[in-house]
Amino acid sequence: MKNRAFYMTELKKLEMNEIDMPVAKEGEVVVKLEYVGICGSDVHYLEYGRIGDFVVDGDFILGHECAGEVVELGPGVKHLKVGDRVALEPGVTCGQCEFCKSGKYNLCPDVQFLATPPYHGCLMDYMAFPENMAFKLPDNVSSEEGALVEPLAVGLHAAAQGGIKLGDRVVILGAGCIGLVTLLACKAYGATDIVVVDIIEKRLEAAKKLGASLVINAKQENVLDVIAALTDGQGVDKVIETAGSEHTVKQTPYLVKRGGTIVLVGLAAKDIIDFDFMQIMFKEADIKSVFRYRNLYPAAIGAIAGGKIDVKGIVTHEFNFEDTQKAFDFVINNKEDVVKAVIKMG
Amino acid sequence: MKNRAFYMTELKKLEMNEIDMPVAKEGEVVVKLEYVGICGSDVHYLEYGRIGDFVVDGDFILGHECAGEVVELGPGVKHLKVGDRVALEPGVTCGQCEFCKSGKYNLCPDVQFLATPPYHGCLMDYMAFPENMAFKLPDNVSSEEGALVEPLAVGLHAAAQGGIKLGDRVVILGAGCIGLVTLLACKAYGATDIVVVDIIEKRLEAAKKLGASLVINAKQENVLDVIAALTDGQGVDKVIETAGSEHTVKQTPYLVKRGGTIVLVGLAAKDIIDFDFMQIMFKEADIKSVFRYRNLYPAAIGAIAGGKIDVKGIVTHEFNFEDTQKAFDFVINNKEDVVKAVIKMG
Amino acid sequence: MKNRAFYMTELKKLEMNEIDMPVAKEGEVVVKLEYVGICGSDVHYLEYGRIGDFVVDGDFILGHECAGEVVELGPGVKHLKVGDRVALEPGVTCGQCEFCKSGKYNLCPDVQFLATPPYHGCLMDYMAFPENMAFKLPDNVSSEEGALVEPLAVGLHAAAQGGIKLGDRVVILGAGCIGLVTLLACKAYGATDIVVVDIIEKRLEAAKKLGASLVINAKQENVLDVIAALTDGQGVDKVIETAGSEHTVKQTPYLVKRGGTIVLVGLAAKDIIDFDFMQIMFKEADIKSVFRYRNLYPAAIGAIAGGKIDVKGIVTHEFNFEDTQKAFDFVINNKEDVVKAVIKMG
Amino acid sequence: MKNRAFYMTELKKLEMNEIDMPVAKEGEVVVKLEYVGICGSDVHYLEYGRIGDFVVDGDFILGHECAGEVVELGPGVKHLKVGDRVALEPGVTCGQCEFCKSGKYNLCPDVQFLATPPYHGCLMDYMAFPENMAFKLPDNVSSEEGALVEPLAVGLHAAAQGGIKLGDRVVILGAGCIGLVTLLACKAYGATDIVVVDIIEKRLEAAKKLGASLVINAKQENVLDVIAALTDGQGVDKVIETAGSEHTVKQTPYLVKRGGTIVLVGLAAKDIIDFDFMQIMFKEADIKSVFRYRNLYPAAIGAIAGGKIDVKGIVTHEFNFEDTQKAFDFVINNKEDVVKAVIKMG
Repeated sequence: MKNRAFYMTELKKLEMNEIDMPVAKEGEVVVKLEYVGICGSDVHYLEYGRIGDFVVDGDFILGHECAGEVVELGPGVKHLKVGDRVALEPGVTCGQCEFCKSGKYNLCPDVQFLATPPYHGCLMDYMAFPENMAFKLPDNVSSEEGALVEPLAVGLHAAAQGGIKLGDRVVILGAGCIGLVTLLACKAYGATDIVVVDIIEKRLEAAKKLGASLVINAKQENVLDVIAALTDGQGVDKVIETAGSEHTVKQTPYLVKRGGTIVLVGLAAKDIIDFDFMQIMFKEADIKSVFRYRNLYPAAIGAIAGGKIDVKGIVTHEFNFEDTQKAFDFVINNKEDVVKAVIKMG
Repeated sequence: MKNRAFYMTELKKLEMNEIDMPVAKEGEVVVKLEYVGICGSDVHYLEYGRIGDFVVDGDFILGHECAGEVVELGPGVKHLKVGDRVALEPGVTCGQCEFCKSGKYNLCPDVQFLATPPYHGCLMDYMAFPENMAFKLPDNVSSEEGALVEPLAVGLHAAAQGGIKLGDRVVILGAGCIGLVTLLACKAYGATDIVVVDIIEKRLEAAKKLGASLVINAKQENVLDVIAALTDGQGVDKVIETAGSEHTVKQTPYLVKRGGTIVLVGLAAKDIIDFDFMQIMFKEADIKSVFRYRNLYPAAIGAIAGGKIDVKGIVTHEFNFEDTQKAFDFVINNKEDVVKAVIKMG
Repeated sequence: MKNRAFYMTELKKLEMNEIDMPVAKEGEVVVKLEYVGICGSDVHYLEYGRIGDFVVDGDFILGHECAGEVVELGPGVKHLKVGDRVALEPGVTCGQCEFCKSGKYNLCPDVQFLATPPYHGCLMDYMAFPENMAFKLPDNVSSEEGALVEPLAVGLHAAAQGGIKLGDRVVILGAGCIGLVTLLACKAYGATDIVVVDIIEKRLEAAKKLGASLVINAKQENVLDVIAALTDGQGVDKVIETAGSEHTVKQTPYLVKRGGTIVLVGLAAKDIIDFDFMQIMFKEADIKSVFRYRNLYPAAIGAIAGGKIDVKGIVTHEFNFEDTQKAFDFVINNKEDVVKAVIKMG
Repeated sequence: MKNRAFYMTELKKLEMNEIDMPVAKEGEVVVKLEYVGICGSDVHYLEYGRIGDFVVDGDFILGHECAGEVVELGPGVKHLKVGDRVALEPGVTCGQCEFCKSGKYNLCPDVQFLATPPYHGCLMDYMAFPENMAFKLPDNVSSEEGALVEPLAVGLHAAAQGGIKLGDRVVILGAGCIGLVTLLACKAYGATDIVVVDIIEKRLEAAKKLGASLVINAKQENVLDVIAALTDGQGVDKVIETAGSEHTVKQTPYLVKRGGTIVLVGLAAKDIIDFDFMQIMFKEADIKSVFRYRNLYPAAIGAIAGGKIDVKGIVTHEFNFEDTQKAFDFVINNKEDVVKAVIKMG
């Protein structure tokens, strides 16, 4: 058995190296990775070397959406056994700070998150990982689907933050990967009317296929007018912004109904945005936001297994591990076409 | 146009009479009823003349699950128009007491609920009703489905009281009409594993067909053992009791997981039941209950329209209005076979 | 008995007229008003003739903070009797729309709110009002305190929207009337550290007297630095903006802690404000807002009666009914000095 | 420095032994204990050798309500320093199971709780403890108060489970130590009317002194009648059972209001209790329970420091460490008189 990993060695450059086999410490398992998804953040690190305050310093392994097979058990492992397939939740938290203790572990200041400097990611053959963050996949959930649980969890957290419930009418701004998993999540949480907005026709087609009640191409139609017409001028129960553009963030107060909720998921390029708070206040609308996710892997896996969510539907491209450089090059050069690319390992 | 109504004139006897055409008062519409469902409470009044403190006194019209077509608008009606088909929410509340004001209008002490003495029900051709309790049905929801919104709302309220959410594992005790609508509701709220328990094989088959992950015939298997085996001895997230038997109420503490929730829906014949509170306390489990429902008609109609809930699947028998006596006789004599009987009006 | 009312006849002009004695309709009582508070919105209508889309058209009676004595009962009144003293909740809602039914009656589109065009206010001797919006005052709560329940309810709603709970650390921006009632409310909801910020020293003294743990004069100190130093750079659990200035709204993202909540209460002069949403998203902070209040009169009266809230502490000036013009003139000309002026009727 | 501990060697027998000085491991501090409270569970283990499934096996150290001074820092300690006084939260949890991750760490199956077999308690001079469970006491909170945070946390959790909020009317059944801390907690959470019921006059006097609005001696008055008279037959918002008697548990359905909440805190001698679920269901009341507490130490300390809760008021007896046997003998023989006895260490 040998262990290979792809390192980002400079901007846009990846290099495969052989590395040591991992050793499972107390409570850890060694996982042979089978699928790793390429996330927008991986691409961003590769192109720009940083995201906000997180700066790549030295050779760096990307990848945090992953699943694989347990091949070795460390001491004290209780529930998993060799041969189990697992999806890995990539943020290992302290478990003891006030955020962890109160159930908001995604806000733990000491989290060690895969592929977030200074922590390496998972683009490698074998990795040791804590058992309690390795969630067993049932037989009818593939390892590819297991790797997709990570982006799906973001969508589920968006729906949960928005309090999406049976019968809600929702507008989702943006139909990229996160917009689409948010669509899947909102459907699974019971939303009955979901309108998806984007400016790229292919993405809107994908949204339509994945269950949007209506799609709007914002280049061709005035989103505010369409939603006003649909809702008798009242707006929708929940507006979820996933596009991360200044323009769409600014639209949200006009789309939401009295007493409704706006959920911000997409990070805009600009920190500071002009926003109509008067609308918000007259409507007594809530604004929530999403930072990763928490406590959602079991529900996500259950929903995939139970046929409630068809997460495979978001995959548009697949590459082999050896072609990782090619995979990233392709994604960088075809951003409009790629919803989700995955790498099939070893 | 003439208006006919069926009156309960003595125990088990119904009699058709011609009555005055209703007049729509301020904010009311006149509805030509198209479907009326027969509820267990209607049958109970007919057999016994009372439910708890509610006593039938004099001739009495049964029926509170209904839908029909708007044929006349009273003054001040704003949203409905003649020809709209509507489902009627049968409890008209005061809108001004502390319960109404805080969103729990199902607890309004001054509610006027159809077919709950002293208020007559809806087994008639034409009825006047407040517009704000008449919910428009979209084209793809039939009036029969509209009449079924009422029992479905009970199931939805059970799921809501239980806080059913994506990924929950649920046990539903009882697979009568309310057990089955609770099953439909739990699925719509995102539960991924739903075990339904009953002692009548036909009902369990219905549960299986409507989407139960597993059914248990409690005459053949030990429910506690099966659930313990399935859940590694931990129990399930939510237990919903719809059977209304002393035995099943007593089982709930052993089926629920630490931190889980029990929801009581079925009214047992006995007021007072032996209950293992020590289990409840060591598990810090919650016990919730269900009294009718609130704020759920729009979500129910949306879920039916959107294909999330197939409420028609619970109907086992249909009768014509003229055969109302026969319909009730049949239901009284075939309780095990009837999940839901409906009366087609006019 | 004669009935007098003050009419706003043109900008800044008030005129006393004799009007008809009111007649109590079904469910109404006639109240002899004893105290009416002057709210910022009354002053704004008098100075500018409008607030947003609400435009004064013709002679107009101001005043919506009030309490008095029941002198006559209409038909169907159940709980009140002649001689009871009551605080009047000034928004009469429809009780039947989706907002009313779901417990958010403050968002009812058909609310009839005192002194909000086209509805007159309460600056008069006698007024008929629905019994269910007239809350009985216990003997140890004065009618002056009863009139102050209205602004207090805004503070209580701000605290409720913020989910203020035992042990919370709070920053309140602004120490005008609403800032101070928010301070009283946060204390009553269990906040243990409350920092109040303003730029007027007199107001900060009032805040200190009413229980602020610390006050900051933003002209003399950098608020962001002080809070960062106090909280080890983490920010506080809840930030409540009551000043309604662009500058303070913009400060909120830097003051709030990870996972914390911002509550917007003050209406800024500008609709659209530059806002650092990146901060919000990295902190996964919530933004809530306040539109009037709901379901809080009984709690407010209970808290005053029980000594939990000393609402009288906010009154700085008192005038007689005959001097209403003088009262408003004074308030208009001494905005920095007046926290709350009240008019003693009769 | 030497370290002494009291061991329970047989039923009702305690023996002082010298033990090794503790060593602070990674993330731990060594604490010189200053006060240890005697809890009913300590007394129960001493008298009976077990509580439910927890059986004392071999010599056993009691005590879990404690506070003291940090005298040594282990590696990796970040926030505490030598000389800090701290209250210790006695349950050390795994931080990684589903209960810990979702904020309900009190339900962690792997918790190591002081003085719960097989884990020893804190009746010793020096103990090593994780920093993150050692909460710093401000200067104005004594170490005696620090030791009382533990029982207070139970009361606070009862109030939190009950959703006690401003204006609530509450009945507390039982005025022993837990009844009284629940009273303090309900006041701090904003309850305005709190009725406390017991059958021992001394305890009722204590409740009166600590802020009960009304006390009822259930030997002299019919509790159900008194509460019905006080509430116009409606019952109170929240009923909290702390007496742990079958009789009082059975009373709760008749005391609670429609839509209200019952909180079960006291463990009754009998597991199984006859209970009127029909009342519960017609009222749609919730039943919640309390298993220890979670996330409440900071709020408790803040509330004591801020003067919101006078927890010292519950202490009725104090003993020196050397007199620990005498202390327990006294408590065992004077159960009616002792609300809370504490042991002053060193």
